[in-house]
Amino acid sequence: MELHVKREHFSSDEQHPNRARMLISCPDGPGIVAAVSRFLFDHGANIVQSDQYTIDPSGGMFFMRIEFDLPELERRMEQLQAEFGEIAGQFQMNWKIFNVSHKKKLAIFVSKEDHCLVELLWQWQAGDLDADIALVVSNHADMKEYVESFGIPYHHIPVTADTKAEAERRQLEVVGEDIDVIILARYMQIISPSFIEHYRNRIINIHHSFLPAFIGGNPYAQAYRRGVKIIGATAHYVTEELDGGPIIEQDVQRVSHGDDVGELKRIGRTIERVVLARAVKWHIEDRILVHQNKTVVFN
Amino acid sequence: MELHVKREHFSSDEQHPNRARMLISCPDGPGIVAAVSRFLFDHGANIVQSDQYTIDPSGGMFFMRIEFDLPELERRMEQLQAEFGEIAGQFQMNWKIFNVSHKKKLAIFVSKEDHCLVELLWQWQAGDLDADIALVVSNHADMKEYVESFGIPYHHIPVTADTKAEAERRQLEVVGEDIDVIILARYMQIISPSFIEHYRNRIINIHHSFLPAFIGGNPYAQAYRRGVKIIGATAHYVTEELDGGPIIEQDVQRVSHGDDVGELKRIGRTIERVVLARAVKWHIEDRILVHQNKTVVFN
Amino acid sequence: MELHVKREHFSSDEQHPNRARMLISCPDGPGIVAAVSRFLFDHGANIVQSDQYTIDPSGGMFFMRIEFDLPELERRMEQLQAEFGEIAGQFQMNWKIFNVSHKKKLAIFVSKEDHCLVELLWQWQAGDLDADIALVVSNHADMKEYVESFGIPYHHIPVTADTKAEAERRQLEVVGEDIDVIILARYMQIISPSFIEHYRNRIINIHHSFLPAFIGGNPYAQAYRRGVKIIGATAHYVTEELDGGPIIEQDVQRVSHGDDVGELKRIGRTIERVVLARAVKWHIEDRILVHQNKTVVFN
Amino acid sequence: MELHVKREHFSSDEQHPNRARMLISCPDGPGIVAAVSRFLFDHGANIVQSDQYTIDPSGGMFFMRIEFDLPELERRMEQLQAEFGEIAGQFQMNWKIFNVSHKKKLAIFVSKEDHCLVELLWQWQAGDLDADIALVVSNHADMKEYVESFGIPYHHIPVTADTKAEAERRQLEVVGEDIDVIILARYMQIISPSFIEHYRNRIINIHHSFLPAFIGGNPYAQAYRRGVKIIGATAHYVTEELDGGPIIEQDVQRVSHGDDVGELKRIGRTIERVVLARAVKWHIEDRILVHQNKTVVFN
Repeated sequence: MELHVKREHFSSDEQHPNRARMLISCPDGPGIVAAVSRFLFDHGANIVQSDQYTIDPSGGMFFMRIEFDLPELERRMEQLQAEFGEIAGQFQMNWKIFNVSHKKKLAIFVSKEDHCLVELLWQWQAGDLDADIALVVSNHADMKEYVESFGIPYHHIPVTADTKAEAERRQLEVVGEDIDVIILARYMQIISPSFIEHYRNRIINIHHSFLPAFIGGNPYAQAYRRGVKIIGATAHYVTEELDGGPIIEQDVQRVSHGDDVGELKRIGRTIERVVLARAVKWHIEDRILVHQNKTVVFN
Repeated sequence: MELHVKREHFSSDEQHPNRARMLISCPDGPGIVAAVSRFLFDHGANIVQSDQYTIDPSGGMFFMRIEFDLPELERRMEQLQAEFGEIAGQFQMNWKIFNVSHKKKLAIFVSKEDHCLVELLWQWQAGDLDADIALVVSNHADMKEYVESFGIPYHHIPVTADTKAEAERRQLEVVGEDIDVIILARYMQIISPSFIEHYRNRIINIHHSFLPAFIGGNPYAQAYRRGVKIIGATAHYVTEELDGGPIIEQDVQRVSHGDDVGELKRIGRTIERVVLARAVKWHIEDRILVHQNKTVVFN
Repeated sequence: MELHVKREHFSSDEQHPNRARMLISCPDGPGIVAAVSRFLFDHGANIVQSDQYTIDPSGGMFFMRIEFDLPELERRMEQLQAEFGEIAGQFQMNWKIFNVSHKKKLAIFVSKEDHCLVELLWQWQAGDLDADIALVVSNHADMKEYVESFGIPYHHIPVTADTKAEAERRQLEVVGEDIDVIILARYMQIISPSFIEHYRNRIINIHHSFLPAFIGGNPYAQAYRRGVKIIGATAHYVTEELDGGPIIEQDVQRVSHGDDVGELKRIGRTIERVVLARAVKWHIEDRILVHQNKTVVFN
Repeated sequence: MELHVKREHFSSDEQHPNRARMLISCPDGPGIVAAVSRFLFDHGANIVQSDQYTIDPSGGMFFMRIEFDLPELERRMEQLQAEFGEIAGQFQMNWKIFNVSHKKKLAIFVSKEDHCLVELLWQWQAGDLDADIALVVSNHADMKEYVESFGIPYHHIPVTADTKAEAERRQLEVVGEDIDVIILARYMQIISPSFIEHYRNRIINIHHSFLPAFIGGNPYAQAYRRGVKIIGATAHYVTEELDGGPIIEQDVQRVSHGDDVGELKRIGRTIERVVLARAVKWHIEDRILVHQNKTVVFN
């Protein structure tokens, strides 16, 4: 299967070699926008897109995402960050600046259900997912040949009750520190708190229900029993609380009394694929800020 | 306010004076459709619409809704029902036949929030709700003048912890046995089991969340805290379990991090209005069958 | 009918007495955001919300909406505008600053179908439409009593082929120059170019189809004939081209082969109500910028 | 890529070896349902699902879909059809009976855009598309290797203005008479009337707009220029009128002023995939009846 190598990728890299994104969150107060925009102007940057949100104008939190072009970005990035540090300190900012041409590195975890993995690979090879898929990790061997046909390393790390700790140690090893985000594409194992701690707000899970309804196992069977008229899927960052992390995206579809559990699963698979792919895209494009178990999504 | 009296009502009554609807549920088995359709044919009825659903063809439940025209329906109804009783017995049917020209009688219960009541009154006076609104009951006096301007009796029955039992006795009295369905149009009091028992599967509530998420009080505040990206409303029949009865209809709308609780309430009011009105319409048109805490809705 | 007078209106006026909104469109170029945010900071304003959009970063158009609080806004507005004029000239800006506490004045035009008018009045009296409904104009007398029961003047101006010019002259007279926006709430008369010229981008129409499908008369009949599976409604600014002006908002709902024209109309009425109300809300909140027959909506 | 061969297919064949579906359309009149259901009962069939629709009860058209189990279906099918012919003649029925275990044969036509083809292949290998994909035809060679990796024959038949007639002759040859339905999965060539005539109501096209808006070429560019707030896709049977055939299914998604043509295409690809897959599924499950350029879809 050679399909993916034939594609021409017009990545953001080639289109906008000097584009950067800045994410800021800090306590609200006067002068933040003026200071940031003045800083960028003084450095010769051109603001392409800017979004801002304040939870509560008097004493709440302020969130900002700025996309800008800066000539010779690659060479000047280090200095830019150093100089912005002064403004950041002044306003107690939590901040990051990303060079858009540095593609984010993804690790995808999967178990037996393959639809979310297949969707991400399809979007990636279609040029819609502007990132590098660095590796796939699975507790099963089923998808090995398929994944490797894309030239992507596949790590089969079985997990049992006894080997769980050891398995996570191996996962940490193959994933490494360099990965930007881990995607649980229907990975059916509980992640331990210590593993989560390594990748705080950098593990995205797709849960196959409209959270907070139907937490835990077999959500489609739960939905069928309750007789809901709409089912959904939820992409969220993983925290120590099962299915309780910050929600990134949700979507739903209407069902009827005539749809049995199998049909709900079939319909749900498409919702899951779409919702997870959107969440991953937004994460890759630095559109998501997390604050107190909730997300601010600038899209 | 005379708006409502100026409307010309083209109700189903005038359009289809001889139309009837039959609802059947029974254990599935061979020959049911043949027996029912033969019975109607032999009596000179013309089937206008027919819907059918079987949960599990081998040993499950069978549900059917038939709409048919029968000359001189009014005069022949009693005999028709008597004769159908034989077939019904043979197949252990739970069944009803409704004369469409006999409009269903509604009682609407409301507290302070008026949007659902206003919507039902508007749809009713626009001719979209083919029923008689027999009375409105409220634990507050606020809407009295408004409701009475439509010529509809308004019963102000205050409810406190101490007077709850007495209040329900008065409610039973004013509603009576003749009412087909009670609509809880944002009626913010818990209904007692004995009251529910009187109107089993005939009390429709609108809950302001996408059930089973956010059961109980302040669902919009719960939704805001959880950071969901979609909110919804649910119309269901009232049972002894709080917000746990058979779901009739649900709908949702996308929200964002920028919507505070007040905005969620504002958006939600329109979802609530639409969802409740649909559920009431389907009940009135005999489109809903209840089985084991779930609904079969033929629409 | 006294309902509306009993409501407590917590309008933006009382909540945010010093809040202003600024709308800007201009050719894109470096330094715009820095200049504007610096200007506001220097005047002691606190930016509450800011949205920005650039069609094409190299040489395209730049659009911005800023919501800010400025102490003693009322007293200082005139000077603020005078001083901002300098910056505006520098960047060739098309701009406006609105004092949020000055409520916008609406005129609603209606014919026989009343659902959109009823919705706007309901949202207004519920406190969801933060504006003054200054008057209602209709070519029919039907809604006079109803509208006047809200304390709103009702001008019955009949329109025939012969009296059209004269009727528009009277409409201009009663509407006046002081009105911020005219809402065609299912007003079934063509508006003349000279009338449109008076209120460029200030007349909102609701068209009962998903434009550009089904332009012109009887869109639901057209939709039924074409056998579409989804119907919609479109709110747009009125231009000289019939149903061709800048689209503000659209929404849709699924229908089936079983829905006849009457049912499409019934379903459509709710879509129309919701879509028009959203468009009016966004206009009132200064969220819409028009550029070359398209809208930028910051919401 | 071996993924597809590892799947276990639980097709309807194995689940319901004796299941049949009957599609009927005829002028409405009394006794149709009674006659059909009596016929099935007398032959020992058990009705599993039945849907019915009448356009206009007095003198309109009647449509029916029945799913039933009949012991030894395979052996008795011929006789069943012969005997049903008598009833059919009596009511002037247009009818068909399908043995569900005889899988439908699909031919997929594709050009350069591969997303719809990839989706159908994925759903097929996931067991969600209960049919045989007999062959793929394309005017380009791009997808040859990919399609053949599934074990499906790929016919590369180039089309130019000069060779169009000859190309269609070759297409007819490779498709043959045995194919149940042809799927135009973003096949960008106009089909000639004579080719359409061969496969009347058996060619499904996906058009990348919410028809009848944006007929013809570049619908996403048209949608961008018009500034619509919602885009969609439409699956329809192909007729001689360009993008004018009976609509099977449509779906939509909200877009904003910030989405350029490229983004509309990206969003649209997912809508196209989902809509086409639904339409194909319904065709395969015999859920669609065509009448006067419109579809009746029992789902």
